Amino acid sequence: MKDHYGELITSLSGVNDKKIVLLVLDGIGDTNNNGKGTALQIAHTPNMDKLAGRSATGLAHPVSPGITPGSGPGHLGLFGYDPILYQIGRGVLSALGIEFPLEKGDVAARLNFCTLDDKGKITDRRAGRISSEKNRELIEKIRKHIESDKAEVFFETESEHRALLVLRGEGLNAEVGDTDPQETGKEPLDPTRAPYEESKTAKVVKEIFEQVREILKEEHPANMLLSRGFAQLPNWPSFEEKYRLKPGAVAGHPMYRGIARLLGMEVYSEPVEPADILKETIKALEHYNFVFTHFKDPDKKGEDGNIEEKVKAIEAMDEALPILTDHNPDVLIITGDHSSPAPLKSHSWHPVPLLISAPGSRGPYVEKFDEVLTLGGELGMIRSMEIMTLAMAHSGKLQKFGA
Amino acid sequence: MKDHYGELITSLSGVNDKKIVLLVLDGIGDTNNNGKGTALQIAHTPNMDKLAGRSATGLAHPVSPGITPGSGPGHLGLFGYDPILYQIGRGVLSALGIEFPLEKGDVAARLNFCTLDDKGKITDRRAGRISSEKNRELIEKIRKHIESDKAEVFFETESEHRALLVLRGEGLNAEVGDTDPQETGKEPLDPTRAPYEESKTAKVVKEIFEQVREILKEEHPANMLLSRGFAQLPNWPSFEEKYRLKPGAVAGHPMYRGIARLLGMEVYSEPVEPADILKETIKALEHYNFVFTHFKDPDKKGEDGNIEEKVKAIEAMDEALPILTDHNPDVLIITGDHSSPAPLKSHSWHPVPLLISAPGSRGPYVEKFDEVLTLGGELGMIRSMEIMTLAMAHSGKLQKFGA
Repeated sequence: MKDHYGELITSLSGVNDKKIVLLVLDGIGDTNNNGKGTALQIAHTPNMDKLAGRSATGLAHPVSPGITPGSGPGHLGLFGYDPILYQIGRGVLSALGIEFPLEKGDVAARLNFCTLDDKGKITDRRAGRISSEKNRELIEKIRKHIESDKAEVFFETESEHRALLVLRGEGLNAEVGDTDPQETGKEPLDPTRAPYEESKTAKVVKEIFEQVREILKEEHPANMLLSRGFAQLPNWPSFEEKYRLKPGAVAGHPMYRGIARLLGMEVYSEPVEPADILKETIKALEHYNFVFTHFKDPDKKGEDGNIEEKVKAIEAMDEALPILTDHNPDVLIITGDHSSPAPLKSHSWHPVPLLISAPGSRGPYVEKFDEVLTLGGELGMIRSMEIMTLAMAHSGKLQKFGA
Repeated sequence: MKDHYGELITSLSGVNDKKIVLLVLDGIGDTNNNGKGTALQIAHTPNMDKLAGRSATGLAHPVSPGITPGSGPGHLGLFGYDPILYQIGRGVLSALGIEFPLEKGDVAARLNFCTLDDKGKITDRRAGRISSEKNRELIEKIRKHIESDKAEVFFETESEHRALLVLRGEGLNAEVGDTDPQETGKEPLDPTRAPYEESKTAKVVKEIFEQVREILKEEHPANMLLSRGFAQLPNWPSFEEKYRLKPGAVAGHPMYRGIARLLGMEVYSEPVEPADILKETIKALEHYNFVFTHFKDPDKKGEDGNIEEKVKAIEAMDEALPILTDHNPDVLIITGDHSSPAPLKSHSWHPVPLLISAPGSRGPYVEKFDEVLTLGGELGMIRSMEIMTLAMAHSGKLQKFGA
């Protein structure tokens, strides 16, 4: 993998005393809610609107048109890592999501509790979506009985039917076949099948799942575990190496702290309410010259399909916004990691509104921060992975390319 | 380096009798000059505005959002060479800037006169920005005394503290460490340090700088030279190979003639005044089916921070424009290589307005050629490296891609 763009930006990145805040309104983008408009169009947001009226605005594709990103690619794009080149393995993402302290060389996989029939065929890939409590009970039972002299083995509950497997030890790698066949009516797959016949790690995994099957055989409906996405921590340039910035994160939810740590950002604090989030951001600015601030609620309400609550979440952040804007950070970016339209009750591919408040904007300026008007702003339609470059430019940190 | 896009365009490029003019208004883009508007918004430009009213318009990012290009990347983009893939070495760019007749195999480096203290540490990387006259005097002294039996050595004045080194001979290459440590308080670096220990060229360079130090030791403040960006002429497809066009350049300033020649364009003439520039362009159209026409003044005035003069430069070109438009070239492109906003007194990252006057446009059409209104035109926001493709399309030279 050759990242021409990323290497260019790194080669141009210089240092000065300007500070950058990236405020991520998770899942902010919306569709039109049966003609009532998007959440941002409906919401009363005088503070964001005033800011948009003197900012560079546009729309940003988290990956590229039509691609619906998960939290990983969504945030990698915002941090300037091309999400198509920089892919986080599924197992690692699961570890980040519960803040499992993954170490270099660890191998992680995402697990699902499932139901096997008496012929060993899968009848339910999610074991009837067992409760998180049941999950914890079964994980405890597995931990008590599992044995391996070839690796240190960790089983961790995520939620409902979801769990995490981590192997730690010398010489392990991610050369392991998924045991999850991704359909019912089949048996779990052999992790040592071609091309993994010679993989030491695949053999360890095979032994472990043989034990798990024995340990869970009397349970119902969750009488087995399926695994997928075996992966190790990637060896990527840290955010600090990439931009010569000292980055800190203010994030109330584990997944986002996990992604931040993956890129070498320190987690400064973990607030969840708008006013707290913004107060912590200002405090963080005393320690870092880049602060990633995460606000989860718009995504949560959008995924619930609750437009009223999504609007309220946005309005709550807007009301608190002067806590941050009165402090006048040198560069303030407000955008989302992806859209979570209430009508779709899920993430979507729609581009997200973007605002960069900083010296050097030239207009046209827009009257409201929403998905329609920002498109008339000076940034037009860009990719999220270009936002950090713009922030570096507006803060005067990016040197001229070529003479 | 694999240039998928460039190879595709070349494979689709056909030949007909249509002619293309690319009029580059150097540094044309601006910011809003404290609310007075951009240079183009302020300027009275009835001819460009009339043209915009029947042209395909948009904004073009010279490289990509946030990246401020120098003249090299800015023009490579306009010529359809992806500036991130096609990077001109610093030394080669210096040679182009003074039209040094660089040959294949030559190794060029950018030099700075500097000041060393009595311990050999750099106290000023630009030797107090000595005059060009003093520079010429010192270069003459170096030429008189320098000796090498391993390469032909050229020293050339650029301006002030800037100079050029060129080595010519068998088996030379650019495997040489910069001697400029890019900070004061340090000694010049050894060009033969790792990984250049085995490089013949690095050894030649080391001997040369030992001589230079001796030659300049009694001088003050310019008692040494620093070098950086050792590079050779790149082995790129010529503009003619790329598009099957016969290209000529009308450019009054050496850097732009140099870039044109680098891509195999012939330099037709060197006018600097708007009316002359456009008259020469018409004459050049008798000899070439692609004419690159360069107008320097908007950049110069923008870099001076003089908005009034930048506006006047634009108005002067607009007044002369009918000389060209009355001739009605098949395809006329007007755009810039980058922005040079008067408030910033430098190049900037802001996208440049773009106009393509040719058959095949469809609107919406705009009322004025400026940074705000062109964004409403049919081209939206594109990259400069896509402009030549559009010109080829509008001239009927670009074949269908796939059956």
